[in-house]
Amino acid sequence: MAPTTGVAGDHVERMLARYRDLALGALLDDVPAGGPRYLYDLVTEYPRRWGKGLRAALCLATCRAFGGAPSVGLNAAVTVELFHNAFLIHDDIQDASEQRRGGRTLHAEYGVGVALNVGNMTNLLALQRLAANRAALGSGIAWRLFEETELMLRHSLEGQAIEVGWIRDNVGDLDADDYYRMCLKKTSWYTCIYPCRTGILAATGRERAVDVLDRYGWYLGAAFQIQDDALNLTGDYADYGKEIAGDLWEGKRTLILIDFLRRCTADERERLVEFLGRTRAQRTAAEVRWLHGRLLAYDCVEAARRSARDLAAAARREGERALGSAVDTEDGRFLLDLTDYVVDRSR
Amino acid sequence: MAPTTGVAGDHVERMLARYRDLALGALLDDVPAGGPRYLYDLVTEYPRRWGKGLRAALCLATCRAFGGAPSVGLNAAVTVELFHNAFLIHDDIQDASEQRRGGRTLHAEYGVGVALNVGNMTNLLALQRLAANRAALGSGIAWRLFEETELMLRHSLEGQAIEVGWIRDNVGDLDADDYYRMCLKKTSWYTCIYPCRTGILAATGRERAVDVLDRYGWYLGAAFQIQDDALNLTGDYADYGKEIAGDLWEGKRTLILIDFLRRCTADERERLVEFLGRTRAQRTAAEVRWLHGRLLAYDCVEAARRSARDLAAAARREGERALGSAVDTEDGRFLLDLTDYVVDRSR
Repeated sequence: MAPTTGVAGDHVERMLARYRDLALGALLDDVPAGGPRYLYDLVTEYPRRWGKGLRAALCLATCRAFGGAPSVGLNAAVTVELFHNAFLIHDDIQDASEQRRGGRTLHAEYGVGVALNVGNMTNLLALQRLAANRAALGSGIAWRLFEETELMLRHSLEGQAIEVGWIRDNVGDLDADDYYRMCLKKTSWYTCIYPCRTGILAATGRERAVDVLDRYGWYLGAAFQIQDDALNLTGDYADYGKEIAGDLWEGKRTLILIDFLRRCTADERERLVEFLGRTRAQRTAAEVRWLHGRLLAYDCVEAARRSARDLAAAARREGERALGSAVDTEDGRFLLDLTDYVVDRSR
Repeated sequence: MAPTTGVAGDHVERMLARYRDLALGALLDDVPAGGPRYLYDLVTEYPRRWGKGLRAALCLATCRAFGGAPSVGLNAAVTVELFHNAFLIHDDIQDASEQRRGGRTLHAEYGVGVALNVGNMTNLLALQRLAANRAALGSGIAWRLFEETELMLRHSLEGQAIEVGWIRDNVGDLDADDYYRMCLKKTSWYTCIYPCRTGILAATGRERAVDVLDRYGWYLGAAFQIQDDALNLTGDYADYGKEIAGDLWEGKRTLILIDFLRRCTADERERLVEFLGRTRAQRTAAEVRWLHGRLLAYDCVEAARRSARDLAAAARREGERALGSAVDTEDGRFLLDLTDYVVDRSR
């Protein structure tokens, strides 16, 4: 396993920063000045806070690895970042989250009415960037990118429905496969698979073989999500930027929680199911502390991290297979080293 | 002014029902069966409850009046109805509304997490219907319909931002022009102007002169919104389907409220501004009753209804001008008689 500090880690950080800055600059240029209060100024709120820019970087690096100039993939990279920011705004409302990227969530600061609308406007700006591919890449490829976007949105919304449904129905009998199916739809598709597919499409201008990085993206996204779940329980707030143990307050069915439910005693299970049956507002800090302690005592966080590392290794193998001779390019190396980065990151 | 009962009113109701049934059938056919819980089954929840289908009817009647068969405009009609239903779901969350079309709002019944997601999926289904125009009408017209949709969404979201901003900032110094500007964006564009423009585009296949019904749509939408505001205060729940005086609980800046703010005494104004400064949860039934009584005592509802009738008459004149010889067709008559319908309706 390559460390994120050291040469490979530095390389990943540098490439992420380069592509993030490229996409973020273009994204901010897209947002109209003026207009009514509480709209365009707030669209830029989450993007301006620190973000990894992982999705834009995946799209642009894939585009280059498949022979395209970054400029060819820029619309697609900005599109996915805009969808991502819209998703964060809406997701924070849905989960009643209070912190995001080191600041208060948009709805906590401005109310649900404003925040929901800003999320919708962010989605609209994503669609406008998507449509800009018509002039840049021609009508045929632009339509294909539109179809890819529909597919990605469908998976993401179905994944979100699975997760909110589990919380709503207080589902307790889940196994790792349930988690992975949800994770494929909720995280992997829009975070990794979609940026890779649109990067390939933009680079090659061919409508076929856009799926060669699907497995890479699927494993990478799952590893990324599990590490995110782990950081939520063990991270440092200054790095992580979200409230620590927020997932427990929200009743999220993470791989970590599912593992605990499978291995805990009957008494512990009963206590947990009762906890999960309450609303967020009904949960107490003492209960969250108890659960947090149990998850660590049972080594559930470390077990999940091991799964994440296995997934990262699988992503690397799939990436090497799909990239062929491009593994030795700057972008090929970045895509492969990213597999270690997502599980070693502290933020 | 033509009554909605009587020959013209019956004709309007019949045409609305015909086009609503056509669009609703196609809409329901679009929604996938199966999938995760709390998603596709809930997408059909608001459409299945009684709705006027005004937007679909405007689109299909305009399409026919401009020489197109209804089948040519069907995708556009379903698209606007889907966007409308998504807008209702999100709007109900934003306003914390409890009733919609005679039942509980989606978020009141299933929680904000589920409802917000269902609204997003409804928007996605609208985009998919929009994309279906590529096969039906060709790539060029399909792109133009996409551009019209972007424009409509931009106006709608800006209008929504204006309204939620007024509530958030507790703005009291508004005049009728402020209301009409907000109403043009929030209501007229997506309810009337957009369906007319897309109906013309689908019918003629020409990219120009899609704006000939813009003024008709603008006046019609404003008349429709004012009547909606009036019904909120004076309607019968069984017909109207939303909580009576809900707008007062929500602090909505309607033309009626703006008129009262302009004409009331200093004491009344002070009391109202204090009321409006509270959150919905902090408002009491006694205060709402007082305000409701004041609005009626000052004849503000009737004054607003007079403005709505003036707007309806203006819409008729603009419609007659734009429709030319089509005024004598079944659809031309429907579009003109609709101007009376929107201000005379009880639901």
